[in-house]
Amino acid sequence: MKIRLKDGSVKEYDAPIAAIDVARDLSEGLARAACAARVDGQTRDLRFIIDKDCDVEILTFDDDDGKKAFRHTASHILAHAVKNLYPEAKLAIGPATDDGFYYDIDIDRAFKEEELPLIEAEMKKLAKKDMKLERFETSREEALSMMEKAGEPYKVELINDLPQDAVISFYRQDDFLDLCAGPHLISSRAVKAVKLIGSSGAYWRGNEKNKMLARVYGAAFTKADDLTAYIVAREEAKKRDHNKLGRELEFFTTCDIVGQGLPLFMPKGAKVLQIMQRFVEDEEERRGYKLTKTPFMAKSELYKLSGHWDHYRDSMFVMGDEEKDDDVYALRPMTCPFQYMIYNARQHSYKDLPIRYSETSSLFRNEASGEMHGLIRVRQFTISEGHLICARDQLEEEFKGVMDLIRFMTRALNIDNDIKYRFSKWDPNDRRKYIGDPDMWEKSQNIMRKLLIELNVDFTEAEGEAAFYGPKLDIQFKNVHGKEDTIITIQIDLALAERFSMTYIDRDGSKVNPFIIHRTSIGCYERTLAMLIEKYAGALPTWLSPVQAIVLPISDKYNDYARQTVATLQQRNVRAEGDFRAEKIGYKIREARNDRTPFLLIVGETERAANAVSVRSRAGEEGSAPLDEFVARITEEIASRANYTKGETPR
Amino acid sequence: MKIRLKDGSVKEYDAPIAAIDVARDLSEGLARAACAARVDGQTRDLRFIIDKDCDVEILTFDDDDGKKAFRHTASHILAHAVKNLYPEAKLAIGPATDDGFYYDIDIDRAFKEEELPLIEAEMKKLAKKDMKLERFETSREEALSMMEKAGEPYKVELINDLPQDAVISFYRQDDFLDLCAGPHLISSRAVKAVKLIGSSGAYWRGNEKNKMLARVYGAAFTKADDLTAYIVAREEAKKRDHNKLGRELEFFTTCDIVGQGLPLFMPKGAKVLQIMQRFVEDEEERRGYKLTKTPFMAKSELYKLSGHWDHYRDSMFVMGDEEKDDDVYALRPMTCPFQYMIYNARQHSYKDLPIRYSETSSLFRNEASGEMHGLIRVRQFTISEGHLICARDQLEEEFKGVMDLIRFMTRALNIDNDIKYRFSKWDPNDRRKYIGDPDMWEKSQNIMRKLLIELNVDFTEAEGEAAFYGPKLDIQFKNVHGKEDTIITIQIDLALAERFSMTYIDRDGSKVNPFIIHRTSIGCYERTLAMLIEKYAGALPTWLSPVQAIVLPISDKYNDYARQTVATLQQRNVRAEGDFRAEKIGYKIREARNDRTPFLLIVGETERAANAVSVRSRAGEEGSAPLDEFVARITEEIASRANYTKGETPR
Repeated sequence: MKIRLKDGSVKEYDAPIAAIDVARDLSEGLARAACAARVDGQTRDLRFIIDKDCDVEILTFDDDDGKKAFRHTASHILAHAVKNLYPEAKLAIGPATDDGFYYDIDIDRAFKEEELPLIEAEMKKLAKKDMKLERFETSREEALSMMEKAGEPYKVELINDLPQDAVISFYRQDDFLDLCAGPHLISSRAVKAVKLIGSSGAYWRGNEKNKMLARVYGAAFTKADDLTAYIVAREEAKKRDHNKLGRELEFFTTCDIVGQGLPLFMPKGAKVLQIMQRFVEDEEERRGYKLTKTPFMAKSELYKLSGHWDHYRDSMFVMGDEEKDDDVYALRPMTCPFQYMIYNARQHSYKDLPIRYSETSSLFRNEASGEMHGLIRVRQFTISEGHLICARDQLEEEFKGVMDLIRFMTRALNIDNDIKYRFSKWDPNDRRKYIGDPDMWEKSQNIMRKLLIELNVDFTEAEGEAAFYGPKLDIQFKNVHGKEDTIITIQIDLALAERFSMTYIDRDGSKVNPFIIHRTSIGCYERTLAMLIEKYAGALPTWLSPVQAIVLPISDKYNDYARQTVATLQQRNVRAEGDFRAEKIGYKIREARNDRTPFLLIVGETERAANAVSVRSRAGEEGSAPLDEFVARITEEIASRANYTKGETPR
Repeated sequence: MKIRLKDGSVKEYDAPIAAIDVARDLSEGLARAACAARVDGQTRDLRFIIDKDCDVEILTFDDDDGKKAFRHTASHILAHAVKNLYPEAKLAIGPATDDGFYYDIDIDRAFKEEELPLIEAEMKKLAKKDMKLERFETSREEALSMMEKAGEPYKVELINDLPQDAVISFYRQDDFLDLCAGPHLISSRAVKAVKLIGSSGAYWRGNEKNKMLARVYGAAFTKADDLTAYIVAREEAKKRDHNKLGRELEFFTTCDIVGQGLPLFMPKGAKVLQIMQRFVEDEEERRGYKLTKTPFMAKSELYKLSGHWDHYRDSMFVMGDEEKDDDVYALRPMTCPFQYMIYNARQHSYKDLPIRYSETSSLFRNEASGEMHGLIRVRQFTISEGHLICARDQLEEEFKGVMDLIRFMTRALNIDNDIKYRFSKWDPNDRRKYIGDPDMWEKSQNIMRKLLIELNVDFTEAEGEAAFYGPKLDIQFKNVHGKEDTIITIQIDLALAERFSMTYIDRDGSKVNPFIIHRTSIGCYERTLAMLIEKYAGALPTWLSPVQAIVLPISDKYNDYARQTVATLQQRNVRAEGDFRAEKIGYKIREARNDRTPFLLIVGETERAANAVSVRSRAGEEGSAPLDEFVARITEEIASRANYTKGETPR
């Protein structure tokens, strides 16, 4: 039996061997660091028995799947500790995540903050015991009987839901037993650098109709220093959390009485959204887009035609009752069918194509209450949503035009290095989720893949993430908590034109269905603003700042000169304000800085005499500058949409 | 008995006398023209018996109330004619209107267009018979028994709903009898110049839960020439009807599948709305308003607090069921409570006041399906809605500022001579419709009346038209059909700050409720656009036109020069387009004119050689102009928001 290792060398064995023993054979150090193995490309448990020729790689904490096994073991230790301290607790699920692990636990209440250190201490005690993790498989009946006896109803439900042919495995450490597919570390000992980060509520299976469980989050590393670095970075990131900072800066607020997922933009936030909206609408107009303004609701018939009623209804706000009312209305989750109605308002010819519609559109999605987060996941949002309607031979050119627009937008917002491209495909095994036949999907996905390759887009692929009518290119970003969301999307749709009887008269006089590209350009304004707040820790570039310069007279003797200065700036379209309150200059400066105002212009006797301003920018104290010179500098900075001021460290 | 006439002269009688006999006494001509009388300021039937000293004026068709009596008689003749032709018809109500009359009739179906001339002919036959109208009063029992016997269930319902002490009167002409308070002409004879204009459906008592009746509309004049002039003007007005012209010009469309009252703005209409929105937002910013952007829905709790749930719910779109769902949401009919939440997001001090919030806000009102009309009465609309929050001693100044803004806006839109001001007060006899006590209403109405007088506003007063929380100044306009609607509103609100616990810290440290002014500045964008389309017959001023100039090459040899010209104009922010289709120049010119494009720039050899354009404006063919000169002229026209181009006749 030949085992080829990662470095290309080959080991020969004459009998089946466990992956961990291959690691031991290579070095004791590697065996100690081993978290999992990769056998012929598949991630396996270290206890996996190799019994034929194959490629083997020993995975450590440095590998993503190694980290996962390590943190998954940490999550078992967490559950073990909880069961020791709260024998009545029922266990649900406990996976590793991208940067840690969690366990959902039912103790009929939430954990209090002060309980977490006690659980953490118990975990450390357990880890130190060097418990060996033992894996075994059972029949379904045996598994059910074990979990029923252990009083674990959630595990029983999980087993019942497993496919009939599933291998059912458990992991045991001392007296603790958990239903688990693995892989896991060999021993608990490595899990030393562990910290419980917090706890929150989570519905069983993510469904708000189910019981609310307590989710305990943790971080786990191989070294204490790494854990410390992680916690420090996390605290730093939290300060940038738009959901905290955006409120402190009075960009937005929320109220229980209005409802979850319905942020209210205060003047500063509303101003930034207005600036972005105008920027986007003007750029789109330059690129040949035509504005539309369509209603936010429609009768259910429209959504039945579009497919939303069958494929998207759970996420929609519906008004009325189909059994009782003549007409049932629903708030729109997307703009597509409305722009199609605009297209259909008259007969088009091939000469009219391509037509590029765009709208600053409000959309509504009835998100579950556990899903909502700040400005990132909300129930009402604003999006630059557009549809390009074109002939087959225009599809490539139009797609490229959209990519160019999106690259322009992400560069303008300076987020081009913060995003990742994901090619989202359908799931051919779950056809209920989609309209159209496999041929249509094959065709539209091939067109998109070909274009992405031609355009040198560095993308990953994701199955089951398509829209119900076609494949998507999703542009993804991660927030400060590491959670990934889509910020911009482009979709190729070969399905809906036919459903909506959209046609154009072709050169030969025949009526033909056009092709459609769905797209956003800046995405959802609320989400983009959240991302910008987090990226810049609230200090938005000057062109996006609600107030660009604030003039601070050092005493009320200089109010007149300050007012003149404000007026001069406003005449040049700079968003300037003055602070004329009867407060100390030091207090005013602190407040203006806390507000992240890009330019503080302090004026006193010297400045007035010289028709100058004393400039404090994000680059520091810059000293006095003639007013003309400062006006020229700030207007140039705004016009060029600079993301940093002269002398500032770029982010 | 002394009767003082309008000219100051006095007539003496020694016995009671009917008003018509006073007219006869003055002249036979006056008696023939008499339609009603005014006795001590009260409009009375000509049959009214004068039995004491009083002022008397004989009203003719030249007086508003004379016209009403005349047309009301026409409506009785209409009903009489219908009963002759359709004995099974049931009569509902048949009033005079501002420019005609109608009768709502139940014949279990709609009238067909070809039936109206037959009814009209029967009316003329009846009128000619010189039937005398006879008035008599009855007891309630007798009235009910007469109408039951006549098989008129709607009349029975009307009698039952009359107050117990009401005088119940009928008018009879030949064998036709109608429940009616009058007044009426003496004879049918005068009603010669009559025309049935059309018919439509109308719910009994305007409630869509009731039966749909057939409403027949008519026009009636004393002279045939006046009727003809009216019909011609009406046909002309109909061509300007935004609901027809706005569709033809592709400003908007509607679709059954989307729903009634939910217009879809096509690119041209959406562009005009964008121009207006930016104009309004910028002007408001200059005037110290702060933008907000708040959600379009909220939990029912918010509307319960504001009073909308109790006083406005029938007009709201509600999502969910209070019996079944944890949270019931509703789309907002107004922005007030949302901006109050913004105010309440932090504690304010007297130093912060006044605060002026404004939002380009979407509102939703569940209008009955019979009420909807084009862009004027819709279920979703966009409004520049704002609230000024101030201290008591700032209320006058802020109200004046709002009036100044509104005068600026109506002048900019050139509608300042098309509007009327209405002071809308509460109805103290229907307190269920309002919140607050009589003292509060007394106070807020007095403040508003005093301000209106100070500001020399020429206003009428209307009882029962206030908002449920305070009095309004409504700015009214009439559409081409003569129907009046509110275009802009200002309200003084002394009620809601307390309900919402809105406070500020006053100079003495105490917490005080602020005063609130609710206001729009341009009103509802959709309605304003409708009004502008009708006023300008679609030919919007250049600054508001979606396309301001179109360049038309006389052949494709001049496409390059035309493209350069378009680019030059666009660089100067003129919305310019070129028409490069392979069509004849005459066809292109006709189409551009039909589109109401303000400037057609025709280019051929001469123009290219001279770097010029041949200009056709709304003033006519202007001949060739150097391109530079034309650019200067159009950019000046746009910047000054001129409502006409040089040489055009102002409207």
